[in-house]
Amino acid sequence: MNAEILAVGTELLLGQIVNTNAQYLSEQLASLGINVFYHEVVGDNKVRLTKTLHTALDRSDIIITTGGLGPTNDDLTKEVIAQAMGKKLVLDQTSLDRITQYIKKLNIPMAKTNEKQAYLPEGCIILPNDNGTAPGCIIENDKNVVIMLPGPPREMKLMFSSYVKPYLERKSSTKLVSRVLRIFGIGESELAQRYMDLLENSVNPTVAPYAKEGEVTLRITAGCKDEQEGLALIQPVIDKLKSEIGDFIYSCDDELMEEVVVKKLAEKNMKLSCAESCTGGMIASLITNVSGASKVFEQGIVTYSNSAKMQYLNVNAKTLEKYGAVSEQTAREMALGIKNASQSDIAVSVTGIAGPTGGTAEKKVGLVYIAVADSDGVSVREFNFTGSRDRVRRLSCLNALDMVRRRIK
Amino acid sequence: MNAEILAVGTELLLGQIVNTNAQYLSEQLASLGINVFYHEVVGDNKVRLTKTLHTALDRSDIIITTGGLGPTNDDLTKEVIAQAMGKKLVLDQTSLDRITQYIKKLNIPMAKTNEKQAYLPEGCIILPNDNGTAPGCIIENDKNVVIMLPGPPREMKLMFSSYVKPYLERKSSTKLVSRVLRIFGIGESELAQRYMDLLENSVNPTVAPYAKEGEVTLRITAGCKDEQEGLALIQPVIDKLKSEIGDFIYSCDDELMEEVVVKKLAEKNMKLSCAESCTGGMIASLITNVSGASKVFEQGIVTYSNSAKMQYLNVNAKTLEKYGAVSEQTAREMALGIKNASQSDIAVSVTGIAGPTGGTAEKKVGLVYIAVADSDGVSVREFNFTGSRDRVRRLSCLNALDMVRRRIK
Repeated sequence: MNAEILAVGTELLLGQIVNTNAQYLSEQLASLGINVFYHEVVGDNKVRLTKTLHTALDRSDIIITTGGLGPTNDDLTKEVIAQAMGKKLVLDQTSLDRITQYIKKLNIPMAKTNEKQAYLPEGCIILPNDNGTAPGCIIENDKNVVIMLPGPPREMKLMFSSYVKPYLERKSSTKLVSRVLRIFGIGESELAQRYMDLLENSVNPTVAPYAKEGEVTLRITAGCKDEQEGLALIQPVIDKLKSEIGDFIYSCDDELMEEVVVKKLAEKNMKLSCAESCTGGMIASLITNVSGASKVFEQGIVTYSNSAKMQYLNVNAKTLEKYGAVSEQTAREMALGIKNASQSDIAVSVTGIAGPTGGTAEKKVGLVYIAVADSDGVSVREFNFTGSRDRVRRLSCLNALDMVRRRIK
Repeated sequence: MNAEILAVGTELLLGQIVNTNAQYLSEQLASLGINVFYHEVVGDNKVRLTKTLHTALDRSDIIITTGGLGPTNDDLTKEVIAQAMGKKLVLDQTSLDRITQYIKKLNIPMAKTNEKQAYLPEGCIILPNDNGTAPGCIIENDKNVVIMLPGPPREMKLMFSSYVKPYLERKSSTKLVSRVLRIFGIGESELAQRYMDLLENSVNPTVAPYAKEGEVTLRITAGCKDEQEGLALIQPVIDKLKSEIGDFIYSCDDELMEEVVVKKLAEKNMKLSCAESCTGGMIASLITNVSGASKVFEQGIVTYSNSAKMQYLNVNAKTLEKYGAVSEQTAREMALGIKNASQSDIAVSVTGIAGPTGGTAEKKVGLVYIAVADSDGVSVREFNFTGSRDRVRRLSCLNALDMVRRRIK
């Protein structure tokens, strides 16, 4: 089965928002074994939407639309699709009741225009919106399936996962099972050399790499009759990769680095603290964005100034004077300082020059020292990153978290 | 002039990356007064790319493609477009020299396949790539302009701003000048009521609202002969909005809230510090992501545990016991505590329940207290946010920064 994803909304064509819906849906459809051949975006314009829809009906089995289900006159997705497929829009009382209830809960008056949202193509499958007012729907005929979803990602995603995914699973003959490995600390090209045979010769499962900033993701996908068979097909590939590159693999389940760190700390019942200079709270923020972080995260200190480094972390004034704030020695004392102050089991510190200003001939923008301290002592690494301030900060965080991860074991 | 943006790349159809290029280009084209009527994404497939291109050539004056200019056999944008427009690909020695130089600088061997990137359609305008190997190009004929840009955003954006934007400016007869107002603390519907007349009746400049999480953006755009005339047309609208909603407008130049806060602090020569519980370092991270933050940011403390709140912020054990960590009283003591400890001019504190767990019948997930302290005293506000952990944290940060911004004046 081939699909295309058609987003409707002038705000996308003006560049006011990014079409993240297309990415989410593509990823979901890929995992269901459905090929996506086209994405399109068209504005809130009847003529262009109609033309685009006819092209899509011609060339694709499944068409998923996002957007244009709102209450205003601009919102015309349902109207255009119903007309193109020869269906009338009829009032669905259940949907109207749901909309009324939803608006009542928000304590705002129900607008007359909201009623429009309860009119749906005759004979369609109605998709309830559990995060908003606009219901979605599915129209089927001999040739096509058209699935209309709302535009706001919160509403769209919940509707897709609750109602559309199960529907498509029933339609699809083969099942695809994937596992996603996340790898850090080894470049894509070096990795490619080591797994080239897997990548080129593996038919089922397939292995697809994707390089992101500072890390590589490998998606291993098996076509199978059920999940158990799929996982069994995938496991030997994971075992082989593990034997090749060991703990460069930080997750076999597409987790974020900070999720892995929090999980490992919780398993070992360890508490972490951090002292940040150039990352300025980003490490603490990443860790505390993981639900349940309060069990493992003790405290974080952002010491931008030298005086704060001395006051909270007991960094020696002489160290700062002799080696500077961005130095191996200062990083070491910062890690030890926060570990002692917080009485945590493990501590990480970062000091560096994120740029774009602040670099010198000796210490260039991108120079970063990261230290990790635990009961065994302290280790420090020096990094020389390139790129924007934001990039230097993000790579510093990833490396700091990776150093913590490796130290926990 | 009408344009469409055609991205080429199977990775987009698999959902491995988001098409941020389309958003960037749309925004840029809108500012040049060029209407974008379609976005499309097609995979690395000759048949489908050719068909899509022919549709585009039929309906659009300008077609901008991104991606498919790489060295591998998958990369076929240039080949397909040259064929469709009846052009041969010919070697451009200057481009080959640039590619050779670029690869030499990276200290990696030049692959034979890189040479392919120096073959360009005969008679095209060549666009140098200052951030990579693949040159872009422009083909013009009587009806269309086709502009081919590389896929990686870093390369694409630099090429667009350096070479394509000046090219399109020369082609475009009217100039558009925009200013973007950012508004916080007033809902879109309330705002709409107040500026409805502006929105509906303003022809030049036009006023376009866009609601984001927690804030509203208004783009005011004037068609004009030069920038000076454009700005003069826009200013009365800004003046009117300022008289209506005053300092709900936090920027007239599309700045981020944290950029405005850092700028204002620097103007007043003030130092900020923060004490964070549920936001866990996000406020510090936002502030320190602004270049030059070191001049105004003193220190930040992430006190997740009660003991850290007492240790660093001198929060009274009795306060924590009687009112709890998430309370007006604790927020107040946190703000005063970090202000005293850091000797900064202004301090902000946040304590709350970000969820998804941790809520009780009395104190629900989303309950957040934010306090700001300066030499005039402390003020505290209570918030009841809804939504995910991430949303509660982000809204907390925005409100905390807005409270600081309002206090600086």
